[in-house]
Amino acid sequence: MAEDGERKEGFSAPEIRRDPLSGAWSILATGRSRRPGAVPGASREPACPFCPGNESMTPPEVWSAGRKGSAPDTPGWEIRVVPNLYPALVPEAGERGWRKSSRVGIPAQGDHEVIVHSPEHGLSLGAMDARRAAGLLGAWQARYRHFAAMARVRYVQVIVNHKREAGASLEHPHAQVFALPVVPRAVLDELRESRRRAGNCPLCAEAEEAREDDRVVAENRAWRAFVPYAARAPFELRFAPLRHAGDFAAAGREELAGLADVLTRSLGALSKLLGDPAYNLWVHAAPCDGKDYQHYHWHLEMIPRIVISAGFELATGMYLNIMEPREAARQLRVSAG
Amino acid sequence: MAEDGERKEGFSAPEIRRDPLSGAWSILATGRSRRPGAVPGASREPACPFCPGNESMTPPEVWSAGRKGSAPDTPGWEIRVVPNLYPALVPEAGERGWRKSSRVGIPAQGDHEVIVHSPEHGLSLGAMDARRAAGLLGAWQARYRHFAAMARVRYVQVIVNHKREAGASLEHPHAQVFALPVVPRAVLDELRESRRRAGNCPLCAEAEEAREDDRVVAENRAWRAFVPYAARAPFELRFAPLRHAGDFAAAGREELAGLADVLTRSLGALSKLLGDPAYNLWVHAAPCDGKDYQHYHWHLEMIPRIVISAGFELATGMYLNIMEPREAARQLRVSAG
Repeated sequence: MAEDGERKEGFSAPEIRRDPLSGAWSILATGRSRRPGAVPGASREPACPFCPGNESMTPPEVWSAGRKGSAPDTPGWEIRVVPNLYPALVPEAGERGWRKSSRVGIPAQGDHEVIVHSPEHGLSLGAMDARRAAGLLGAWQARYRHFAAMARVRYVQVIVNHKREAGASLEHPHAQVFALPVVPRAVLDELRESRRRAGNCPLCAEAEEAREDDRVVAENRAWRAFVPYAARAPFELRFAPLRHAGDFAAAGREELAGLADVLTRSLGALSKLLGDPAYNLWVHAAPCDGKDYQHYHWHLEMIPRIVISAGFELATGMYLNIMEPREAARQLRVSAG
Repeated sequence: MAEDGERKEGFSAPEIRRDPLSGAWSILATGRSRRPGAVPGASREPACPFCPGNESMTPPEVWSAGRKGSAPDTPGWEIRVVPNLYPALVPEAGERGWRKSSRVGIPAQGDHEVIVHSPEHGLSLGAMDARRAAGLLGAWQARYRHFAAMARVRYVQVIVNHKREAGASLEHPHAQVFALPVVPRAVLDELRESRRRAGNCPLCAEAEEAREDDRVVAENRAWRAFVPYAARAPFELRFAPLRHAGDFAAAGREELAGLADVLTRSLGALSKLLGDPAYNLWVHAAPCDGKDYQHYHWHLEMIPRIVISAGFELATGMYLNIMEPREAARQLRVSAG
């Protein structure tokens, strides 16, 4: 049980610390400072660890798709999953939390993986054909299910950081999966709102209103992509399944195919409109802690990194958006053609 | 009362919209898209509107310090306050909120000002002498008091965005003051935590623990600057008055002088250590809505923008920090000399 007073020099297991002022959690993972590009000006790796032929540059793979008889950690894969070399959470971090006056924390016990999206260094999600993207979403779901089944994991967070300006330390398109021992604050906020309005799901209502307000960018029978009413940034998008359901793990093959369709069309339109901007994309689904989340509606969110969130956002937790959501949707629809 | 369905083309009054999924507020201020550098690649103004001689480039000044007989909107000032040319909030936005199914909002009624820190284009807060900085904090307080006294203003947010990477659209050092009709979510979080532990203030405890843990960067009889236990980013700093008090408006001249001392020493050390990095700095004080906030402890917070917050932070509301707080404090103390 690490306490600040007992910290050793050098690497130590990552911790999740609670801020006594705000109640927010921070993961302190000092090992991540060694990853490429963690500090501006630090040298970047010359070869891409996610390209075929460089498999030895990553930890051994834990999952792959597309191999036709090739051995693990050699080329021949279509999708490849490896542990993060600089993990924010580790299985052996320990279990017991601590409290020493206002210093409260728990070990950052969990896991942190990378899903390499394809062997092609330049093939981003928005440039994939929908069928291939559906296969990729199946890989996300497989890793999601793997961690969600673990007793100590309370939440599985899947994210994509597209390009360095969005925080990606490697350019080769990939997703990251975080298996967390806590339910993140942003998810708790959404759970509270949807519970408060149980029987009248806010995302069901929002998806319908997006249509009334001309804020839809792409849709099909199972999914709708739209600019939210209270968009935090220009061209923010929300991707909602039209069937109310909370669990990403339970989504069927057709549902993932529908998501792949709206996702590739929307991200493709964004890329065409703004010249392949950096963005962050993430899944929000019900926690996997065994409680009842019938009221919750899973979805994806995407924010392009074309404006810098500044002191106002940090100070207030509010956002300043300069673009009318309906106009953002219109421009994306035009770009989608 | 604007509703999305009734929106007109072109400029319209800014709105504060509530996200039905998370409950978070976004200010939609489309007029801000015209400000310099709002969109990457847009042309920047050739001359600095905040430099002496260019006073006509800003709206007429509403406050100044240091004039020895010179006329408003001419050179001769030491500190100059002007309305933001691209305001996020305006006095005439209206008063009545709306609710149309899940679309909830209120007019962004309030004010948005700029405090130009000095006539010198290159003089940042961390490079000022403490006496001059104390005068500047007096200007912040004067504008804070001006807005806090208004019945419709619930919260006054003072922020500094230092350099473009921190979201500043103009380089000339300045602060921004936002007079808000709502109490921001980040402040509500802190109010909840301090109320929960009334009589045992978390910031009083934290300031004491920072000393025990060697996380102090600078201190004097009235203030302490330290790296928080749950720091969100490398070299994050918190500035706490040692006397428990919630109200920025009530701080006396000596208290502001003490703040100026720790602020200039800490920001000076940060600048020397990291080569004048971009940062966001803000005040958190009790709301000015007339309620009782005896439990709250006002303070300042600063986060350098040397790492990019990415999808994990956006998705979870948690932070990933790669630097041991004690080590950050040690490096800053060494730099401070």
